[in-house]
Amino acid sequence: MESDRIKQGPNGLRVHIPIHLRWGDLDALGHVNNASMLRLIEEARLRAFWRAGDAFDAPSTAIMGNGVTGASDTMAVVAQQQIEYLTPVPYGRLPLDVQMWIGRLGGSSVEICYEVRSPAAEDHGTQPQITYARASGVMVMLDAATERPRKLTEEERAAWAPVVGEPISFGRAR
Amino acid sequence: MESDRIKQGPNGLRVHIPIHLRWGDLDALGHVNNASMLRLIEEARLRAFWRAGDAFDAPSTAIMGNGVTGASDTMAVVAQQQIEYLTPVPYGRLPLDVQMWIGRLGGSSVEICYEVRSPAAEDHGTQPQITYARASGVMVMLDAATERPRKLTEEERAAWAPVVGEPISFGRAR
Amino acid sequence: MESDRIKQGPNGLRVHIPIHLRWGDLDALGHVNNASMLRLIEEARLRAFWRAGDAFDAPSTAIMGNGVTGASDTMAVVAQQQIEYLTPVPYGRLPLDVQMWIGRLGGSSVEICYEVRSPAAEDHGTQPQITYARASGVMVMLDAATERPRKLTEEERAAWAPVVGEPISFGRAR
Amino acid sequence: MESDRIKQGPNGLRVHIPIHLRWGDLDALGHVNNASMLRLIEEARLRAFWRAGDAFDAPSTAIMGNGVTGASDTMAVVAQQQIEYLTPVPYGRLPLDVQMWIGRLGGSSVEICYEVRSPAAEDHGTQPQITYARASGVMVMLDAATERPRKLTEEERAAWAPVVGEPISFGRAR
Repeated sequence: MESDRIKQGPNGLRVHIPIHLRWGDLDALGHVNNASMLRLIEEARLRAFWRAGDAFDAPSTAIMGNGVTGASDTMAVVAQQQIEYLTPVPYGRLPLDVQMWIGRLGGSSVEICYEVRSPAAEDHGTQPQITYARASGVMVMLDAATERPRKLTEEERAAWAPVVGEPISFGRAR
Repeated sequence: MESDRIKQGPNGLRVHIPIHLRWGDLDALGHVNNASMLRLIEEARLRAFWRAGDAFDAPSTAIMGNGVTGASDTMAVVAQQQIEYLTPVPYGRLPLDVQMWIGRLGGSSVEICYEVRSPAAEDHGTQPQITYARASGVMVMLDAATERPRKLTEEERAAWAPVVGEPISFGRAR
Repeated sequence: MESDRIKQGPNGLRVHIPIHLRWGDLDALGHVNNASMLRLIEEARLRAFWRAGDAFDAPSTAIMGNGVTGASDTMAVVAQQQIEYLTPVPYGRLPLDVQMWIGRLGGSSVEICYEVRSPAAEDHGTQPQITYARASGVMVMLDAATERPRKLTEEERAAWAPVVGEPISFGRAR
Repeated sequence: MESDRIKQGPNGLRVHIPIHLRWGDLDALGHVNNASMLRLIEEARLRAFWRAGDAFDAPSTAIMGNGVTGASDTMAVVAQQQIEYLTPVPYGRLPLDVQMWIGRLGGSSVEICYEVRSPAAEDHGTQPQITYARASGVMVMLDAATERPRKLTEEERAAWAPVVGEPISFGRAR
């Protein structure tokens, strides 16, 4: 069963989460700061994969226990991240369209892939979409008690399998 | 002409701006951090009073030149702020309802008053609203060239007069 | 017994904590952002009053249980803050000199006063000091279990009494 | 001529910049947040390679025009970043030891490598050093006027050549 946050596109099913910029994401150069960009994808990841806060508007992939508050039997930690900044992001009122999919379902980890795009038409975007950044990150599931990795659950595999797609291949850092 | 972001309430007209929390606004105590709260009201202030980014959804009070990018003949600086934290703010998916009005239109400054509330019914809030924090801040208009205060313009007075209301009186710090 | 972080000045004993700016504290206007300023004083408050991390360099006022990690029988919450921004803060390599004292020791709360100044001579500051901002905040001690206010302990009163001074009186917001 | 911030180690010359944590770098899980980590390396990069703020304590590699304020003929943009989080970072009073070197001097870009370590002995660290994270990022020099890439200057090559070392090879995301 699909929420309307999960859409079929040319590259398969993706979770689309609208994320509003804050003026405070800009740095002294007047663009969204490179570190702030990780805050944006953090929020998108959370809304896509955690059963966080009110259920409203949560996609079918949002099934993780509320580790968002630290109160869960799972602690999901980011083990690695890679990000490519394609073009500077200006401030705007409309939410960015953060698209996510799973590049790889591992034994106890999952690789999440991101494209940070300009506002979607459904969110009143009037321009052809620009891709501002591409990123991927590996999230490892730890047993909160032992802090040792634990296997992905069947529920997690079932909920996330539909959005498995091609991992991002980043150009070698020039 | 009023945008639907400006609503008549028991205490007069207020600008209502929905602001999404980010999980990153929480600190190690698991609540929205006291400094993060100023980020939330900064974003609300911007959306309420600046002609920032896409015009979509901008209330009639959003008429300031885009000082948001620093490119404007006006530099509006926050001279003073006061905030009272009434109850801890948990993370949630639904946007907080930040309500704003003008406590005082000065010669070259304006006092902006804020109430940060739990999600509004229109934003799928299902609970009676809680007021999390009350704040006020003085914003002074500087001529960007001279960095000296400049008078409020007629346009500013006209746009903001409708939302002038009673300033917040804070209890003496106990 | 005084640590060298506690100094006698014209206005009595103050705790002096050097706080390094980060370029990321600047906003798109190229100055330290008004919300970032609360992050700076948060860090100064912590170093002045919490028994946080390594004991090195901790003043004699740093006696609170490590609520900094949330693991303590006390949860200290900021109930109210007021801040006056006197002049914009540029980026610099040298740490700002954040001076703190206690404006009032209440039953279960304490009012902390701050002056955020340009780098101190001892930290290689070569200019006469500028006061960038003045702030005060009320911190309430809660019993972590019940989340009800608890009385200041004798240890707290003894450690903090020496740095009690005149509270800041802020000009009425113009 | 070497500043004492540049040290010979088993892996060649590295720039060592002490960076203080802020309690606000922690997230609700009680560890330094993954996005905050990029703020730490941003500050370290700045102090290592920019002629920013007061000259005090600046290593010989700190020669870039003060793009930190946006006022420079060069705009250096981060094109790509990769980071591996090895172990959670707790809060502490002592500055982390951020070690940097240059993995590659390109035509108009430079790859900066980072190791974020626990406090150095010289900064009162008493434990054997832990490496918390390893990162690399590509910084491209743009002509501020045209926003087109510009060649590295001879001065930049001369200042940075001494700290060129082996790039980090990251394990494939598991």
